Amino acid sequence: MDSCRTFVVITLFPEPVLGMLNSSILKKAQDKGLVRFIVLNLRDFGNGRYRSTDDYPYGGGGGMILRPEPVFRALQFARKILDVPLEDTQKGAPPSLRIVYPTPQGQVFHQKDAWAWSLDPRPILFLAGHYEGIDERILLGNPIEEWSAGDYVLTGGELPSLSMIDAVVRLLPGVLSDPQAPQKETFSGEMFDYPQYTRPPVFEGMEVPEVLLSGNHARIVQFRREKAREKTLRVRPELLE
Amino acid sequence: MDSCRTFVVITLFPEPVLGMLNSSILKKAQDKGLVRFIVLNLRDFGNGRYRSTDDYPYGGGGGMILRPEPVFRALQFARKILDVPLEDTQKGAPPSLRIVYPTPQGQVFHQKDAWAWSLDPRPILFLAGHYEGIDERILLGNPIEEWSAGDYVLTGGELPSLSMIDAVVRLLPGVLSDPQAPQKETFSGEMFDYPQYTRPPVFEGMEVPEVLLSGNHARIVQFRREKAREKTLRVRPELLE
Repeated sequence: MDSCRTFVVITLFPEPVLGMLNSSILKKAQDKGLVRFIVLNLRDFGNGRYRSTDDYPYGGGGGMILRPEPVFRALQFARKILDVPLEDTQKGAPPSLRIVYPTPQGQVFHQKDAWAWSLDPRPILFLAGHYEGIDERILLGNPIEEWSAGDYVLTGGELPSLSMIDAVVRLLPGVLSDPQAPQKETFSGEMFDYPQYTRPPVFEGMEVPEVLLSGNHARIVQFRREKAREKTLRVRPELLE
Repeated sequence: MDSCRTFVVITLFPEPVLGMLNSSILKKAQDKGLVRFIVLNLRDFGNGRYRSTDDYPYGGGGGMILRPEPVFRALQFARKILDVPLEDTQKGAPPSLRIVYPTPQGQVFHQKDAWAWSLDPRPILFLAGHYEGIDERILLGNPIEEWSAGDYVLTGGELPSLSMIDAVVRLLPGVLSDPQAPQKETFSGEMFDYPQYTRPPVFEGMEVPEVLLSGNHARIVQFRREKAREKTLRVRPELLE
């Protein structure tokens, strides 16, 4: 099996999405051949001479809605280049492409989902909505999963798509230089990460806690555990329940 | 008072951040003079000839930590260009600059916070961390608020910063062409948005619900309310409690 994971983004704003995908860890993961990103410009699949992608809502109301045909054509094109069956509806079988529609009305994305997605070899396609939303028939006629990056409303699905991609990619083996990092951090255990200190030893009159300079590994572990617990109790006590 | 709201981002990756800020609604809000974005490259405030910004953690552990001095210098520079007092610690008075450090260990950002921030005229500075985190003394020595965009771990604070900016900016008066939009949507009422339909009337054999073509406003309102309630009950029943 191809160990290079594929992520597709369908968007009306391909340039800034590519800008994010081509920087930092996501860039490094591509350079290492661990991931492949495909960004499709929804406008290329628009209707008619003006490549129109949106229209007024039936029944009235402000704002514009993404029309179903351009989205449908973009999804079919993606299935074709990914070599995924166009009619992907065998009873009971999971679709061979995970399609994610980011919306505040979806399931709330959590670190445990990032882990699950990182272990699932299927390509993931993100359909970034814009304007007031997307024609409901796209959601009814395709095996689309609705996911939310948080309980707030954004102008488009680009930022949540990128956040979910980043959360998943950094968990793929070989992406982070410290392979133990994901196991040690927030949400992988039962509480927050511990506070971190680096040089200089004194900054603006504040010293690095003496224990961290002690070289006593057992004391350092205990100090970090206590501090992590203190902070979790202060900010998110429900995580410790 | 200046009605143009200011957002600052301190980051090691200014280009992709600017790419996002300069597209779509955030671009339009700037063009209308409603917001101003300032992006500071943390590397410009780095240490020594190589503009170093990170170092190993005291006490051991994998990954690199952002050193306090470059971050401190960038914060002081931002305060200077924003004309905000450097020593902003009058007892009981709120700081004249809101400083946000995005971290999965912060308070979870919610639509009600987007509303509150949109009504608060203070500039907001986002300090986008990277690597394994930031020296704790920056958080101890400044009035910094820690906020989380969701219960998942990302490689940097850029995406959560952009998400919070987007969520706030779209609520500012004049930014969206439909001034009623933010009042009608998910999390502003007690439940989800209703399903949307646009042309064509028949797509892939699926028809637009007849009621939306009826012109009967009372029936349309009732249909939408029922559908919104159905979806909320199915996906996030706790929102209706």
